[in-house]
Amino acid sequence: MSLKDKIAIIGVGSTKFGENFELSYSDMVYEAAHEACVEAGIELKSIDAAWLGTAFPDAGVWKGRSGMDLAEPLALFNIPVTRVSNYCATAGDALRNACMALLSGEHRIVLALGVEKLRDRSPRESLVKMMAEHGHPFYQKGFTAAGTFATYATRHMHEFGVTREDLARVSVKNHKHAVLNPKAHYRKEISLEFALNSPMVAYPLGLMDCCPTTDGAACAILVRTEDAASFNKDYVLIKGQGLSVSMGWDLPFHLPGYDFLSFRATKEAARMAYESAGVKNPAKEIDFAEVHDCFSNVELLTYEDLGFCAQGESKNLIREGATTREGRLPVNVSGGLLSCGHPVGASGLRMIYELTRQIQGKVGERQLEKTRIGLAHNIGGPGAVASVTILGAK
Amino acid sequence: MSLKDKIAIIGVGSTKFGENFELSYSDMVYEAAHEACVEAGIELKSIDAAWLGTAFPDAGVWKGRSGMDLAEPLALFNIPVTRVSNYCATAGDALRNACMALLSGEHRIVLALGVEKLRDRSPRESLVKMMAEHGHPFYQKGFTAAGTFATYATRHMHEFGVTREDLARVSVKNHKHAVLNPKAHYRKEISLEFALNSPMVAYPLGLMDCCPTTDGAACAILVRTEDAASFNKDYVLIKGQGLSVSMGWDLPFHLPGYDFLSFRATKEAARMAYESAGVKNPAKEIDFAEVHDCFSNVELLTYEDLGFCAQGESKNLIREGATTREGRLPVNVSGGLLSCGHPVGASGLRMIYELTRQIQGKVGERQLEKTRIGLAHNIGGPGAVASVTILGAK
Repeated sequence: MSLKDKIAIIGVGSTKFGENFELSYSDMVYEAAHEACVEAGIELKSIDAAWLGTAFPDAGVWKGRSGMDLAEPLALFNIPVTRVSNYCATAGDALRNACMALLSGEHRIVLALGVEKLRDRSPRESLVKMMAEHGHPFYQKGFTAAGTFATYATRHMHEFGVTREDLARVSVKNHKHAVLNPKAHYRKEISLEFALNSPMVAYPLGLMDCCPTTDGAACAILVRTEDAASFNKDYVLIKGQGLSVSMGWDLPFHLPGYDFLSFRATKEAARMAYESAGVKNPAKEIDFAEVHDCFSNVELLTYEDLGFCAQGESKNLIREGATTREGRLPVNVSGGLLSCGHPVGASGLRMIYELTRQIQGKVGERQLEKTRIGLAHNIGGPGAVASVTILGAK
Repeated sequence: MSLKDKIAIIGVGSTKFGENFELSYSDMVYEAAHEACVEAGIELKSIDAAWLGTAFPDAGVWKGRSGMDLAEPLALFNIPVTRVSNYCATAGDALRNACMALLSGEHRIVLALGVEKLRDRSPRESLVKMMAEHGHPFYQKGFTAAGTFATYATRHMHEFGVTREDLARVSVKNHKHAVLNPKAHYRKEISLEFALNSPMVAYPLGLMDCCPTTDGAACAILVRTEDAASFNKDYVLIKGQGLSVSMGWDLPFHLPGYDFLSFRATKEAARMAYESAGVKNPAKEIDFAEVHDCFSNVELLTYEDLGFCAQGESKNLIREGATTREGRLPVNVSGGLLSCGHPVGASGLRMIYELTRQIQGKVGERQLEKTRIGLAHNIGGPGAVASVTILGAK
């Protein structure tokens, strides 16, 4: 059974992403939900079930461990509110469970909201330090997120002739895109030289190859498509969804023959989403995409895993400018994680916000021409879990 | 739309609950899932989506932050695995989302598993210490779980003449029940005198009024009812479900007129579940129940909130022995949280395990006579979120 066109997004909202010291976790929840409700033409009290995506409730503010932290700021009491966490696929999974609840017939108007507050932590108490001290298995082994994803970058460079310049081109592109996005964390163009000369974090990833640490929240309100027009005639359809857990922390390092050249979770999630949406040739059928550029090389790998090009060909896409705003398959016109930042539990819904607004034609000067079918992608874990959502015009 | 009789449980599994130092988090996941699969007559690879319930991944073992920690020990790769957390209602919510996924038609054979490893932590690094140090809002204000629930106990005593003996009677009853449960943490009868003289934790709650800190995992495998008989003819039906978030941490202390005499979350979750199951008079229609006796007084309050008796009358039920194995509405014949312990994310599914096995008539010497309709209840938060699930014979 395919969910294609059965669920409609009737409202989206997003805070500005950045160092939101002036906003609490609850303030961000309210701001994102309020924008979505206004667009949907509903009051909060109409919502009959909700899903909260937060991946790191212990990263400073001890918020987001249960549905309560969504219910309280919105006074969404006496309904079910579920908290979901699935690393960087957290928001995609919150959205997915919300969609199934609508399809089940158990609920009628649902809200999915992702939020993370990562900057309200003393620099001495960073997320990395917390994870290392508390015995997170990855960090115990001496890895960081940058260090792990870097192992994929060096292999990609070795096998397919990807260069550090190609990685830098991703960052230059996304920073340029972000200048037009008032909700991005960074809105400043950078040069190729600046990116290449930025301080090394984990070879070959320099500082400009890494997304910043950011606060933010984003939200979507959904109904079954037959109900959509009664709320908001300008609704957007869900064409397909996929979520896949495809390996554990240790597996890549223990699997004989594992080549560090693709993320199976991305491929499986995309397969599910394409099947539902009826997409046969993503390179031609997807008009634009928001993909998980937590590190610049991950955007390149993802072009290949999503079938935007053949394996090893992503370097050509970035060199030709095919994924710029002006290219044939614009990617991360929001600025991506590299410029919007990555409040982990929020990023997936921030992408849904961007896709929805682009499809509605409501993003002002950053509006793309072709926005019939858009794709949102997250990969987390690193490599363990991926989410793919495809939205389309009605 | 009611979910009554649309979903069937075709297999359940549970580890022994206790200080499972010999079992890792992953070992417990495997043990509970394996038992459920054997009963369901399926192999793990048949499962096409799964939900993991863990509430405290940071309580020592840093496991359970994403679906990966369920997928890895079971090799459930290339399918969606969602992690849910909702304090003490975590497992009930994992089960609920799994049921909606079946109803949606997106999945066919799903697994819901709750697990928590709370004992693999140095005594110097207790959960309470972690929560206090990291600024958990409740603990910042000087509360503990016992201290908070105690405020409900004193009010109950003041308003309705509940006595410390009544609280002790709950603990005596549940400890007696647990002697027959090989999977309980404690299996030793205690006397009323022993309970009353146990060290005071937070007046009026003595040590024997408090559930222990425990490791454990429990699991259920579910399909749509029309598919059930092809897997396991001895399936059990879901009659109703409810989950409600009804207040935040601070609300009870800020709401003028809040009387500390009931948990609204329990009442709302029960209302939803009763409506779905078509239960009009719970005191007569529910044959047996597993309710959230994290502290002895909570079991009494819950009799009232679930409608097993009128408000203020729970003391009579416990004095008359109405909720013993031999009584007219047996409650916590497993031994409850007071004897099984409370691995937070697992408790709700441990109750589902008990209900299912009782309905199937498979619990040996602890078998009850009347087990057509059973109810499982959790309240967490404290007071913020509750889950109610009603199971029935086919």
